[in-house]
Amino acid sequence: MLIVMHHKAGDKQINAVKEAVKALGLTAAPIPGSERTAIGVLGNKGYVDDSTIRDLPGVQEVIHVSKPYKLVSRDFHPRNTIVKVGTVEIGEGRPPVVAAGPCAVESEEQIMKTARAVKKAGAMLLRGGAFKPRTGPHTFQGMREEGLLLLEKAGKAVGLPIVTEVMSPDTVGLVAEHADLLQVGARNMQNFDLLRELGKIRKPVLLKRGMSATVEEFLAAAEYILAEGNHNVILCERGIRTFETATRNTLDLAIVPLIKELSHLPIMVDPSHATGKRSLVPPMSKAALVGGAHGVLVEVHPEPEKALSDGPQSLTFAGFDRLMGEIDRLTVFLGWDEKAP
Amino acid sequence: MLIVMHHKAGDKQINAVKEAVKALGLTAAPIPGSERTAIGVLGNKGYVDDSTIRDLPGVQEVIHVSKPYKLVSRDFHPRNTIVKVGTVEIGEGRPPVVAAGPCAVESEEQIMKTARAVKKAGAMLLRGGAFKPRTGPHTFQGMREEGLLLLEKAGKAVGLPIVTEVMSPDTVGLVAEHADLLQVGARNMQNFDLLRELGKIRKPVLLKRGMSATVEEFLAAAEYILAEGNHNVILCERGIRTFETATRNTLDLAIVPLIKELSHLPIMVDPSHATGKRSLVPPMSKAALVGGAHGVLVEVHPEPEKALSDGPQSLTFAGFDRLMGEIDRLTVFLGWDEKAP
Amino acid sequence: MLIVMHHKAGDKQINAVKEAVKALGLTAAPIPGSERTAIGVLGNKGYVDDSTIRDLPGVQEVIHVSKPYKLVSRDFHPRNTIVKVGTVEIGEGRPPVVAAGPCAVESEEQIMKTARAVKKAGAMLLRGGAFKPRTGPHTFQGMREEGLLLLEKAGKAVGLPIVTEVMSPDTVGLVAEHADLLQVGARNMQNFDLLRELGKIRKPVLLKRGMSATVEEFLAAAEYILAEGNHNVILCERGIRTFETATRNTLDLAIVPLIKELSHLPIMVDPSHATGKRSLVPPMSKAALVGGAHGVLVEVHPEPEKALSDGPQSLTFAGFDRLMGEIDRLTVFLGWDEKAP
Amino acid sequence: MLIVMHHKAGDKQINAVKEAVKALGLTAAPIPGSERTAIGVLGNKGYVDDSTIRDLPGVQEVIHVSKPYKLVSRDFHPRNTIVKVGTVEIGEGRPPVVAAGPCAVESEEQIMKTARAVKKAGAMLLRGGAFKPRTGPHTFQGMREEGLLLLEKAGKAVGLPIVTEVMSPDTVGLVAEHADLLQVGARNMQNFDLLRELGKIRKPVLLKRGMSATVEEFLAAAEYILAEGNHNVILCERGIRTFETATRNTLDLAIVPLIKELSHLPIMVDPSHATGKRSLVPPMSKAALVGGAHGVLVEVHPEPEKALSDGPQSLTFAGFDRLMGEIDRLTVFLGWDEKAP
Repeated sequence: MLIVMHHKAGDKQINAVKEAVKALGLTAAPIPGSERTAIGVLGNKGYVDDSTIRDLPGVQEVIHVSKPYKLVSRDFHPRNTIVKVGTVEIGEGRPPVVAAGPCAVESEEQIMKTARAVKKAGAMLLRGGAFKPRTGPHTFQGMREEGLLLLEKAGKAVGLPIVTEVMSPDTVGLVAEHADLLQVGARNMQNFDLLRELGKIRKPVLLKRGMSATVEEFLAAAEYILAEGNHNVILCERGIRTFETATRNTLDLAIVPLIKELSHLPIMVDPSHATGKRSLVPPMSKAALVGGAHGVLVEVHPEPEKALSDGPQSLTFAGFDRLMGEIDRLTVFLGWDEKAP
Repeated sequence: MLIVMHHKAGDKQINAVKEAVKALGLTAAPIPGSERTAIGVLGNKGYVDDSTIRDLPGVQEVIHVSKPYKLVSRDFHPRNTIVKVGTVEIGEGRPPVVAAGPCAVESEEQIMKTARAVKKAGAMLLRGGAFKPRTGPHTFQGMREEGLLLLEKAGKAVGLPIVTEVMSPDTVGLVAEHADLLQVGARNMQNFDLLRELGKIRKPVLLKRGMSATVEEFLAAAEYILAEGNHNVILCERGIRTFETATRNTLDLAIVPLIKELSHLPIMVDPSHATGKRSLVPPMSKAALVGGAHGVLVEVHPEPEKALSDGPQSLTFAGFDRLMGEIDRLTVFLGWDEKAP
Repeated sequence: MLIVMHHKAGDKQINAVKEAVKALGLTAAPIPGSERTAIGVLGNKGYVDDSTIRDLPGVQEVIHVSKPYKLVSRDFHPRNTIVKVGTVEIGEGRPPVVAAGPCAVESEEQIMKTARAVKKAGAMLLRGGAFKPRTGPHTFQGMREEGLLLLEKAGKAVGLPIVTEVMSPDTVGLVAEHADLLQVGARNMQNFDLLRELGKIRKPVLLKRGMSATVEEFLAAAEYILAEGNHNVILCERGIRTFETATRNTLDLAIVPLIKELSHLPIMVDPSHATGKRSLVPPMSKAALVGGAHGVLVEVHPEPEKALSDGPQSLTFAGFDRLMGEIDRLTVFLGWDEKAP
Repeated sequence: MLIVMHHKAGDKQINAVKEAVKALGLTAAPIPGSERTAIGVLGNKGYVDDSTIRDLPGVQEVIHVSKPYKLVSRDFHPRNTIVKVGTVEIGEGRPPVVAAGPCAVESEEQIMKTARAVKKAGAMLLRGGAFKPRTGPHTFQGMREEGLLLLEKAGKAVGLPIVTEVMSPDTVGLVAEHADLLQVGARNMQNFDLLRELGKIRKPVLLKRGMSATVEEFLAAAEYILAEGNHNVILCERGIRTFETATRNTLDLAIVPLIKELSHLPIMVDPSHATGKRSLVPPMSKAALVGGAHGVLVEVHPEPEKALSDGPQSLTFAGFDRLMGEIDRLTVFLGWDEKAP
């Protein structure tokens, strides 16, 4: 940690800061500069809560060298984590994974048809929403438990592990019982009670980035899950909120290679929610994989124009089939002569 | 709702859209334009889920005239809502309210001292965090239930109603039992299970705006609480996340008068979290009240430099006392000869 | 400047950094930490270009203690700058100033009528656009030179100094000849050739904050003008671009008191462009003044519904008259018994 | 255009709006809805300035169907534009183009060495900055005219067309005389006098997206150049400003396929400025090309650690050579058996 003093800060103020640093059991190392003095803080084992220092008279700013996370950091765990979902391995050095399915489970027929179609096209995971977070209370909120059971049935029928969202701590048990991969939605990325609960189970978790979460906050949210003992976490970039409204969100693809430098956890990309527009999903799916993502989540619906949610960003069966063909070629280009390693 | 067709959309596509509109039991009214055709949709009683239309061939965009909220809207409830917290009335036509206290309850002595000081200075509500959402798991998470009881004790001791945050559905009952006003933090603004739970109680709720929530999403979140039957909701602007890092968040003060046009609910402002800087709290508190806010939440701590969280944005007792003096003068300026109406 | 090394950076890398610092004629002071080493840089007289260091092997990040501006900084010029526009003094310790007028000069009648009305209501400056930057080329671009002369004529007729925008270096001479205060629009805040040109004249400059400019970039842009010798600069907050579309821009009022801490330059606020909505202009004008702004710019038009630009955010004569009445009361509240000091 | 009336707007207000529409020579077509009335506007040949309508009593909002641009729109010019820079063709159906070189021309030796290296590696264009926009006035501002001549010399020496930035209208002639492609930087995207000047020449223009420009504003800026008669415009996504600071900007890759739907102009991507981090440039370069970009601009420097600007994001010769190898393989994957079509 570094404490930067004001241009005009005097010895009295500098000494007070040094005292406050000592009070934390740390060592203060002043760096007299030409314009102002800075004080280096030594000896901290991790992130320092600077609230006893940051507002002392004469302090201009406090800069942290350590990060608010450890377990997710590559600094402290250099080897890549491979997360196993059913029999599918996700992470560095594994072929890219495609999870596909409807935004929401709407009926047995709809999810069964979709499961067969995406399996046939080559998807490795079946996705579908049972518990749906919606902006307003007056729209379809998902089939909830019934949808979860239908999704499980469909997954078993075609032999695909399933991924679905869990919205609150009290339903973690239920969802963990039926799903292979538990998704935390963007709106819940900082629902810390939910994260803690997910840390206590052993099923893998897909943590989506919050709409306005920084990379640091994203990794710190994952830290909550690892801190409780569950290391099976997959990160997912799904677009952030910016001033741009031409797309539903802004796909922040550059954080994929960045996060691979900072963390050992696998990272996937959701081009459907990121763009909100069907025609942008194939190019962004391929861009994500070439950019280093370990997989993509793609929304597919038998009749997108009739979907109860996210129709405009869902691919048709034919469209998904075409995309899988391109992804297969890309997988070979990326060095995977056949799908299995 | 208006459906805008592509420049080149032909009759076949236009008719398909008209069919889809009919399928929703609504009426389609085409508006042929010089460049393209638009289709007005009539007869909807509220917000229309456009997913069966938005991606039909030839459709360029779908524009909603209705909003995803109703109960919170002034259109459907013109009279101002006054929320009663203990004996304190909050809303249009009432003197501005000041809620003050520490970011977090840290000890009996700390909260008792603070309660006496803010009461003496003229605060009408005592605020304090018991359950604390923190970015990372390795920092102080609040005294939880113990802190809640200490806050209640302090409030009773000085005769001030208390406001504190509730983080999960399963603790709503506990917090409602002891607190007079239940706060939903920015990170939980779209924790819909929590909002639904709060809709089932009758205690008033202080709903903070999410870091990247639009005004429409903010009001739609409040709609969740009203939809369950609890109409005692106070909105709170606490700053949004933007590119600017010179302040902790960006205080979006202009939405205060805007929301007063759109909704009948009271709205308060939290200049402490919005700015993150002690010296900016007094000017922004006064700006908020002159701008039309029904009250402000101000962080106060006996020894900010020793606070376990948010020290840099907390006022000292002396600083808060000065601010209350200015707010008293301002209250008179705003037309309140004495505090009580 | 502080150089933070990677967790695993070895002596060889640390020494390379020390060499690079020496190569800049500066001194390197290592701070060995528990997790990683940081290297303090001493002896720099100002901002250090870190490009020879920032990407050496083992360097995690480089943190600047100095700022990219000096002349505008309060650190190096503690006394408040008072800018004189005609006979009007603007800055700390002076009564707040109101500049009013149409977004664009449209005709002699329109500007004359408006000039008389705003003068009568108590405005101290007349504003009006002659050279207009517009998003697209197919809309009204302003009356240009003709508009400038009409504005000058109107100002002289009613005895008000005039403020108008200058868009390019080659028109600085022309505008400076006729205007009392030259405005740089948000889109041109980083048009550095224009800023340099404005630094060479002695007429005062009103520098508007760019739509996505940080406080640091805003002050660094002003530095360009001061660096060329013109110290008569007034800053102006006019709203920034964020994800929120309910208002035209997001008025970032908290930077007003913040900038008064960082710089000695006066700062005004433009609530018309910041909000884009007539009904929000009066509350935000008052909020700006209570928040510490040295003045406000308000758009006024004889017939807003017929304005060629920005009608929706322009006040009518009656509306402006009401606002001036409230501002007069506020000026007294703020400690100015009469307008003149 | 659609005018949405308030819930409670009466006939009198509706008629006033219809009159205002007539006053613009357009036709008003009311759409009575269940909650409120909307009024369709017919007969406009393009974008309608709504300022005479938007703030009439009873009007809730005005929605535009037409766009503020025409010439750049695919609606009105379906065929792809191919821009020729020297002998290099850029656009849909042509092999992807790589422009490479230093951020700034620093010396004859530096630019000559770099020109030879990037040519050898397979670059098709040589980039280099002569006139440099910098945040503050106290840093290196480029070699200006001398740099321009050195860049031209280097380009001729190795047989590569050159691209460089032009900052102001009065230097357009000079730069056009020596450069093959004139770049407009992000800060100048809305420097309309500069855009108009560039519209009068016949040399191609590379227009970079502004830091906070929407897709609509970006295309409207290009419209300024086409409107003056110069149709040789290449768009360039270079990252936008968001809350995220982990990368220099946020690369908004999804707008590449989107803009290809909206416009016939070629679009390139600048991963160096978008990410600000050398290690992210190769993955994002490949992602851009797979995502549909017609080319990329990559910063290359003989000794990045000694670069006077943007060192951290510049590739070394070896790094660029590796990247070109990967791009060659990718070009084949994308369907180009050899570089030439």
